[in-house]
Amino acid sequence: MEPDSAPDKISKIKLKLQDIQDALNRIRNEIVFTPVIEAKHVGKHFCNVFFKCENLQNTGSFKARGACNVLLSMAPTDKSKGCTVSGGRNFLAAMTYYGYKQSVPINVILPRDCPIADKHRYKENYAIIKVHGNDLNDASLHALSYSDEIGSNYVHGSDRLDLIAGYGTMGLELLTQLDKIDAIICPVGCGSLVASLVLAVKGLKPNCLIYGVECAAAPTMTKALHEKKPVMITPNPTVADSLSAFIASNNAYNIIKAYLDRMITVDELWISRAMINILEREKLVVEGAAACPVAAIMAGKTPELRGKNVVCILSGGNVNSTHVSRIIERGMVAEGRLVRFKATLPDAPGAVARLLAKVTDTGADVKSFVPERSWMRKDIFTISANVVVETADEIHATDFKDHLRDLYPSARFAVVDLDEKHKLSGR
Amino acid sequence: MEPDSAPDKISKIKLKLQDIQDALNRIRNEIVFTPVIEAKHVGKHFCNVFFKCENLQNTGSFKARGACNVLLSMAPTDKSKGCTVSGGRNFLAAMTYYGYKQSVPINVILPRDCPIADKHRYKENYAIIKVHGNDLNDASLHALSYSDEIGSNYVHGSDRLDLIAGYGTMGLELLTQLDKIDAIICPVGCGSLVASLVLAVKGLKPNCLIYGVECAAAPTMTKALHEKKPVMITPNPTVADSLSAFIASNNAYNIIKAYLDRMITVDELWISRAMINILEREKLVVEGAAACPVAAIMAGKTPELRGKNVVCILSGGNVNSTHVSRIIERGMVAEGRLVRFKATLPDAPGAVARLLAKVTDTGADVKSFVPERSWMRKDIFTISANVVVETADEIHATDFKDHLRDLYPSARFAVVDLDEKHKLSGR
Repeated sequence: MEPDSAPDKISKIKLKLQDIQDALNRIRNEIVFTPVIEAKHVGKHFCNVFFKCENLQNTGSFKARGACNVLLSMAPTDKSKGCTVSGGRNFLAAMTYYGYKQSVPINVILPRDCPIADKHRYKENYAIIKVHGNDLNDASLHALSYSDEIGSNYVHGSDRLDLIAGYGTMGLELLTQLDKIDAIICPVGCGSLVASLVLAVKGLKPNCLIYGVECAAAPTMTKALHEKKPVMITPNPTVADSLSAFIASNNAYNIIKAYLDRMITVDELWISRAMINILEREKLVVEGAAACPVAAIMAGKTPELRGKNVVCILSGGNVNSTHVSRIIERGMVAEGRLVRFKATLPDAPGAVARLLAKVTDTGADVKSFVPERSWMRKDIFTISANVVVETADEIHATDFKDHLRDLYPSARFAVVDLDEKHKLSGR
Repeated sequence: MEPDSAPDKISKIKLKLQDIQDALNRIRNEIVFTPVIEAKHVGKHFCNVFFKCENLQNTGSFKARGACNVLLSMAPTDKSKGCTVSGGRNFLAAMTYYGYKQSVPINVILPRDCPIADKHRYKENYAIIKVHGNDLNDASLHALSYSDEIGSNYVHGSDRLDLIAGYGTMGLELLTQLDKIDAIICPVGCGSLVASLVLAVKGLKPNCLIYGVECAAAPTMTKALHEKKPVMITPNPTVADSLSAFIASNNAYNIIKAYLDRMITVDELWISRAMINILEREKLVVEGAAACPVAAIMAGKTPELRGKNVVCILSGGNVNSTHVSRIIERGMVAEGRLVRFKATLPDAPGAVARLLAKVTDTGADVKSFVPERSWMRKDIFTISANVVVETADEIHATDFKDHLRDLYPSARFAVVDLDEKHKLSGR
């Protein structure tokens, strides 16, 4: 067999397992050896789920591994010039954190609409903040030219081999923590994390399946695999905001194309359900992106993993606290536990109290009650009530609805369709 | 020296270190060896905080260790008779979980007002549910007589040596996980958990300090130590609801009286601040009780621990999801991040838009805006607006307030007093 007739896919990929091993030796003392925790509820009766808890990593995400490796790999003369960065909040948090720890000045270029809490976090790490442009694209372009101008090192937020080598250290750790792993499911944004796991894990354990999961709102890698090259997409808003990549990373794409076992997409409501499950049952705080692997299992997208040992990568936990409340409510709606209905009542003394008493008798808990008088079309002796109640679970919710329909035949319930396809209109 | 003139405190305590070691051997394969995680933010610049994560234990709390030990210690003939239990939700969750796993029928006696989600959880574990009485006291009394009636084993929810032996296994685990521990801070309800740690840890590492923390709303053990015996108290409502004990456990009291280094109480607002910190910065879900040790450090109650290695026992993570939203908001208020103010405006086109634009210019985010027209005492051309805004932190909030006062001298801000003593009136 001639060497060229059987092209070795690996030869195209410049990063080697040894680079990841070197990275681990480099960053070992600066990062958290994150725990692997067996799931108590997720996947129950279906497969054995384990979590690799990168939400407990320094700076709250796996990006710490990459940033730390980039900075520790720099020559002292480069370090003194500092770095200029732009990009996602997890990357910036990691770069500013390790920049401060390793005395490398970090210039951060942010778009005008950057959330106040994020900006605050970079400032806590003594980063030099510069605001430029309306969105991340503007800011990133400016970061490159600004970096040239001031003679600092520009560090791209994905597509760097030293970042991927850093991320891959998580895979090496994982293999020392669990003996039997049949599959790893990993969130995919621009693809660098899953690519790094492919290199680290498949090199040592070729039979381990590795899946990537994207949110349906930003199917960057799915599109790239379909078009056979990274292409620009316009992501829709998603609760898994850190997966909102415009284009797949080139290096990651090449690795994924060659070795990834499956790409899966999950819908918004399943991501919310997964988040609330991880929060309530597993007692861990994760961001939307990190919930995607669990969402894939819950949505029944991985029937072939029945009975297997499956590691879900909880990639990060950086979720805005005020969003947590909204996600909890959204998740409870998606689980059928929050029920909203509209009922027509006589505008007479006691009618409202009677309705609420009857709701309470069913064991449901009234969360809000808004009577509507002014906008009714019917006679003025009738009011319409918008009621939200909390139930224990879907079965209780169904019982509650049946019971209420008997008492108030006019009651109308709000419907959430879990299998609703993500709307792609407007693209 | 005559034996009686130097009373050996240990001789009064029937439980020995060996009992805890036996318990660990008994339950080892049935419980989670919970991780110890170094805090990223809590205690920063003051001491090194580590978390023993019993929120990640089976059933979401340390009670799993006790319940498992009780059931595994029972004779087969007793097991077949089943158990009858009443008490706190963490204890009942643990008993029903291990009852099902070990094929011991569990009768649960609940008061009428038991939350629907809790009842649902016991049912998931196939417990036999019986509702009796208006509160936990009624239910507990009935549990004892009912148990006699049906010939099952009554298992008291605290004050059993086999429960305490089970809890103590956490201390033995901890000593294998961390080399250098200077102090352990543990939440205290009836006192069994901290008593078990005292026996387990002081037996092997006598110099390790052990502190107990109660919420000021239910100072059960503080009162007992003051009165030199367990006495009944009437707990006030608290976010640390699982610490709401009416009376200290006798066995626990005797151990604590003899060996505990300090008892500390913490106020509600500090517990909320601790919870939101653990959620936001440490990415772990804890219940109010579990946040108390962190609250004690944050409130500056442990100045003597500066520079020390301190383990905070995160005793459990069972917090109602709908409460999480409220706790986040309460915590943000306590941290000064949510600011509420009232301003008087002319009821003229554009006045509201101008106010909101000015707020937004400061970098603050408007969470709610409620105009008030009907109840004003002033002329009808004036409205009052109630506004809630989110800021990045206390410094930003102070800047925001100064700025707004300049623009709207009539603005009045809601005040939260963090050092406000817990109100004991009405007892």
